[in-house]
Amino acid sequence: MTELYTSSDIAAAHDRIRPYIHRTPVLTSESLNQITGASLYFKCENFQKVGAFKARGAINAVFSMNETERSKGLTTHSSGNHAQAIALAAKLAGVPAFIVMPSNAPKVKKAAVAGYGAKIIECEPTQKAREEGVIRVVEETGAAFIHPYNDRRIICGQATAAKELLEDLELSPDFLLAPVGGGGLLSGSSLTTHFLSPETKVIGCEPSGADDAFRSFHSGKIEPLDSPNTIADGLRTSLGERTFEVIREYVDDILTVDDDVILKAMRLIWERMKIIVEPSCAVPLAIILKYPEKFSGKHLGVILSGGNVDLESLSF
Amino acid sequence: MTELYTSSDIAAAHDRIRPYIHRTPVLTSESLNQITGASLYFKCENFQKVGAFKARGAINAVFSMNETERSKGLTTHSSGNHAQAIALAAKLAGVPAFIVMPSNAPKVKKAAVAGYGAKIIECEPTQKAREEGVIRVVEETGAAFIHPYNDRRIICGQATAAKELLEDLELSPDFLLAPVGGGGLLSGSSLTTHFLSPETKVIGCEPSGADDAFRSFHSGKIEPLDSPNTIADGLRTSLGERTFEVIREYVDDILTVDDDVILKAMRLIWERMKIIVEPSCAVPLAIILKYPEKFSGKHLGVILSGGNVDLESLSF
Repeated sequence: MTELYTSSDIAAAHDRIRPYIHRTPVLTSESLNQITGASLYFKCENFQKVGAFKARGAINAVFSMNETERSKGLTTHSSGNHAQAIALAAKLAGVPAFIVMPSNAPKVKKAAVAGYGAKIIECEPTQKAREEGVIRVVEETGAAFIHPYNDRRIICGQATAAKELLEDLELSPDFLLAPVGGGGLLSGSSLTTHFLSPETKVIGCEPSGADDAFRSFHSGKIEPLDSPNTIADGLRTSLGERTFEVIREYVDDILTVDDDVILKAMRLIWERMKIIVEPSCAVPLAIILKYPEKFSGKHLGVILSGGNVDLESLSF
Repeated sequence: MTELYTSSDIAAAHDRIRPYIHRTPVLTSESLNQITGASLYFKCENFQKVGAFKARGAINAVFSMNETERSKGLTTHSSGNHAQAIALAAKLAGVPAFIVMPSNAPKVKKAAVAGYGAKIIECEPTQKAREEGVIRVVEETGAAFIHPYNDRRIICGQATAAKELLEDLELSPDFLLAPVGGGGLLSGSSLTTHFLSPETKVIGCEPSGADDAFRSFHSGKIEPLDSPNTIADGLRTSLGERTFEVIREYVDDILTVDDDVILKAMRLIWERMKIIVEPSCAVPLAIILKYPEKFSGKHLGVILSGGNVDLESLSF
């Protein structure tokens, strides 16, 4: 690897963010153990600040900077959890945040970002307009751009979710499963497992309709997707160079699963565990349901990545 | 009161059921504290066995009986959480359960009851047919009928949720809020509070469309409702004599709230706490939202009664 990571990097990230994040609970479910025939340990990042693990990386990034570096504020483009995470991180550090959001982003997401005191800059809903928006913000304000995943501070921050999970378990799980979109959570989780529980195999869990990580993992080179198509909206992004090089080195396999199983897994979690998870978050359980012969009888750590669902679209 | 309750009754119930129930967590939410201006402590019975506090009373009832009394099994009529609770309690005691359910009960509820090994007896969806069904079961099988709330063993069992909440808090809350339907949970909670935290005021929380407890509390006599109309399906039942006499003695007030606020409160809990609660369960938060001048600045214990929502009816 070009970049070197040590267990101290992850421990330092954890020390840095600990005062600002929730140590989320690890839940079990007799009912889901029965259905899968495995022993599942769910790390509930849906209960994390901003409703997703993204708070870990963003807070680690901002507090890894010195005061001069962050003095002009932070910026990013995102319509999702990373936008809220950067807005929260900036608020904690007492610096401004400038979030470039597509004009068609859901009102509830804009309201959440604005609720942390961030300034929202609207742009056309294209990747090009988003990137240009950020460049303009950087030129005008001097704010520091924080990429949602292709950044070692983000990777080390996301690594702390698996660290807490492994610390809380009284055993080394046979497998650790995490969803993969841009790869920040998966790369971080695989680093942590490498250092703290090397006998645990790490599985990246990806929707079939956005299988760039699966393809890249097997071909050995990044294969971005032009038009991903999956209900798991948090996983439509493609790997970055930094996340990919960690994933190639430390992840044991990447498995894919179709949206119908993802939806079934999400409903099972809502129904049996009485907790809210977003579709992206249900992909690891969907993989476990798809491959019973691989996971039955095993101890499985599962990272539940987030719980931000647009409830406005649900009818009661 | 005709019936005498002591703190030992509740402690004994707790000892009796402890091996079989979850000690559910007490959760807090910064976001809901901000919205309400109060400090809220949520006792999460939506995570209880069968997804509701009803498991407590049913298990206490079956293990309060001697082996002869329960040897022929248990019976009740219910389309809701009490049916599952009795089915579970019978399974734990190793005796049969005969559950009379209306023919229009949701499939998912029937499946849950059958999943505990109970025998389901279908009847016409009227109160009369349900009661006749139970009488027939008792005549034919000798099973013991367990009423869903008008039973001191049920009341003492439901009282243990508030007991755990008060034990887990480091302070005496100013108010304890619980929903009221038949009154098992509210009467039990008020007994517990009377014994363990007498300075805490107990508030019964009721939908305006099923306000029999509110009326009965103020008139001093039970005023059952013929046709309750509320989304809070668990609270459409009317008080019984046993629950009413406890409520008259130990509850400080009963407040009512409309369905639109109940729905808003339910969405807030889903959205901000990332947990699934049923509409009945959201009535206390709806009351807190409705009366900010009463609750702002106070410490409030809130019993979240259950999480059984028919997710089939939600579209994603």
